[in-house]
Amino acid sequence: MIQQLIQKIQKTKAPICVGLDPMLSYIPEHILKKSFQEYGETLEGAADAIWNFNKEIVDHTWDLIPSVKPQIAMYEQFGIEGLKVYERTVRYCQDKGLVVIGDAKRGDIGSTSAAYATAHIGKVQVGSKAYSAFDTDFLTVNPYFGTDGVKPFVDVCKAENKGLFILVKTSNPSSGEFQDKLIDGRPLYELVAEKVVEWGADCMDGEYSNIGAVVGATYPEMSAILRKLMPKTYFLVPGYGAQGGTAKDLQACFNPDGLGAIVNSSRGIIAAYRQEKYAKFGAEHFAEASRQAVIDMVADINSVL
Amino acid sequence: MIQQLIQKIQKTKAPICVGLDPMLSYIPEHILKKSFQEYGETLEGAADAIWNFNKEIVDHTWDLIPSVKPQIAMYEQFGIEGLKVYERTVRYCQDKGLVVIGDAKRGDIGSTSAAYATAHIGKVQVGSKAYSAFDTDFLTVNPYFGTDGVKPFVDVCKAENKGLFILVKTSNPSSGEFQDKLIDGRPLYELVAEKVVEWGADCMDGEYSNIGAVVGATYPEMSAILRKLMPKTYFLVPGYGAQGGTAKDLQACFNPDGLGAIVNSSRGIIAAYRQEKYAKFGAEHFAEASRQAVIDMVADINSVL
Repeated sequence: MIQQLIQKIQKTKAPICVGLDPMLSYIPEHILKKSFQEYGETLEGAADAIWNFNKEIVDHTWDLIPSVKPQIAMYEQFGIEGLKVYERTVRYCQDKGLVVIGDAKRGDIGSTSAAYATAHIGKVQVGSKAYSAFDTDFLTVNPYFGTDGVKPFVDVCKAENKGLFILVKTSNPSSGEFQDKLIDGRPLYELVAEKVVEWGADCMDGEYSNIGAVVGATYPEMSAILRKLMPKTYFLVPGYGAQGGTAKDLQACFNPDGLGAIVNSSRGIIAAYRQEKYAKFGAEHFAEASRQAVIDMVADINSVL
Repeated sequence: MIQQLIQKIQKTKAPICVGLDPMLSYIPEHILKKSFQEYGETLEGAADAIWNFNKEIVDHTWDLIPSVKPQIAMYEQFGIEGLKVYERTVRYCQDKGLVVIGDAKRGDIGSTSAAYATAHIGKVQVGSKAYSAFDTDFLTVNPYFGTDGVKPFVDVCKAENKGLFILVKTSNPSSGEFQDKLIDGRPLYELVAEKVVEWGADCMDGEYSNIGAVVGATYPEMSAILRKLMPKTYFLVPGYGAQGGTAKDLQACFNPDGLGAIVNSSRGIIAAYRQEKYAKFGAEHFAEASRQAVIDMVADINSVL
């Protein structure tokens, strides 16, 4: 699976993913109005607006990018109707040839993690038939439970040729509260990183493992250490743009081969039209603003590689 | 919210919750057959069987217990159809007067945690209207992101009078891999425990906080330390029964007032009919076996309090 992502990155020359994390407040008035007219101010109405918003952004950016990362929480908050749009967005992006990273940060004891792995990257058996539920290409995973909580995800990756990005060092301000704590002189995130390498060792797909890591753009000195500790691990890098990470901060996440990292931007792309820089597009042409924001982001990142 | 749970525990004299974590393999043949005849071997068929299975267990146990804990992963693996049954199960149990602990172990950066909190214990705004999606009474939360990843859940608890159980020391075999690592001579789970106390300090509801902790039954020496560190924190205790925890192991989780902990059993109750001890009930009367297993579990726990 990681090779599919790498090939798409090489073809588009764009080591990025677009975070499809729609908030109703990002959605232009004309889209909301149309959906609310059809469905009322209901969960169906909200879901319809999100779908129309997502579709237009994907239609305007898919040829420039290798992948998208829908954040399931943004859909889950609208209940069943929201999750239907998550599923529909995943399918639509895959039909456009995009690699889809399901950002769900799941993780639990073994038997429960097995159910989550089935839900998001595997197949569920119903009598003599097998079905895929959300079926993304990659899934983000939380490591707090340790090996037996992560192993079921890794096993499904092997069986189905899928991939993971496991939280190592997250991009948020208080990520250091537990993740940076020193254990025998080394921060917890380094211990997690070593486990990620161990879990990924027999999931190699070419030069890289299908088991990747989440490494925030907001802590570049730590990225440099992690890059050395995990040379064959792909990094999913959140925190660029709206969260404060710059292109310069990203350099340390890449290997000398120019590979090794995929940088996410959510708000910075999908709500670009609300930035002064892209205001000229106007809310009606929000997806064109997103396209321009993708072009600018790719140029910005490539300028430091 | 914690007072509602405590009152129900005192009324039923049962400090337990029933884990509604249905696997298709737990569901008796006659239920599966009926659902598959009506809907085929489809996700709808699986969901219908799970619903009928859950309903019968709840109908046979609700008067004996204060609460249930549906594990959302077990529903998520059947996609949208499974999640509809999760929602329906939550509503059905609440209509029976049960406190519902949504076991979802969510957690992310702040803005994403806010969306998860909205999804599971809060309300989402759609234009001028507000809706609740899954709307459980408590939610389990993963602390790996630190304060800013947990705070949005706490804020929603305050606004909506809901509660949390935050992972501190989990019941699985490899929980020690990261959770037991020593930081300045003290295990990580103690640091997390101190943060849980801090987060819960202004969420008091009577003698206890609405912000609780997950503390596994399988590590009794650690439970004793945590009980002392967190005297006003309610413990949700997994690991009893099928995972190996005994009533003796649970003692340390309770305060001298006989309160402070609620013990979960999933397989041990919902799949009781498959144990030799309850085989006499037969698969047709699986829910009567579950009722007997609840009675036995309550007696077992009360024998050590």
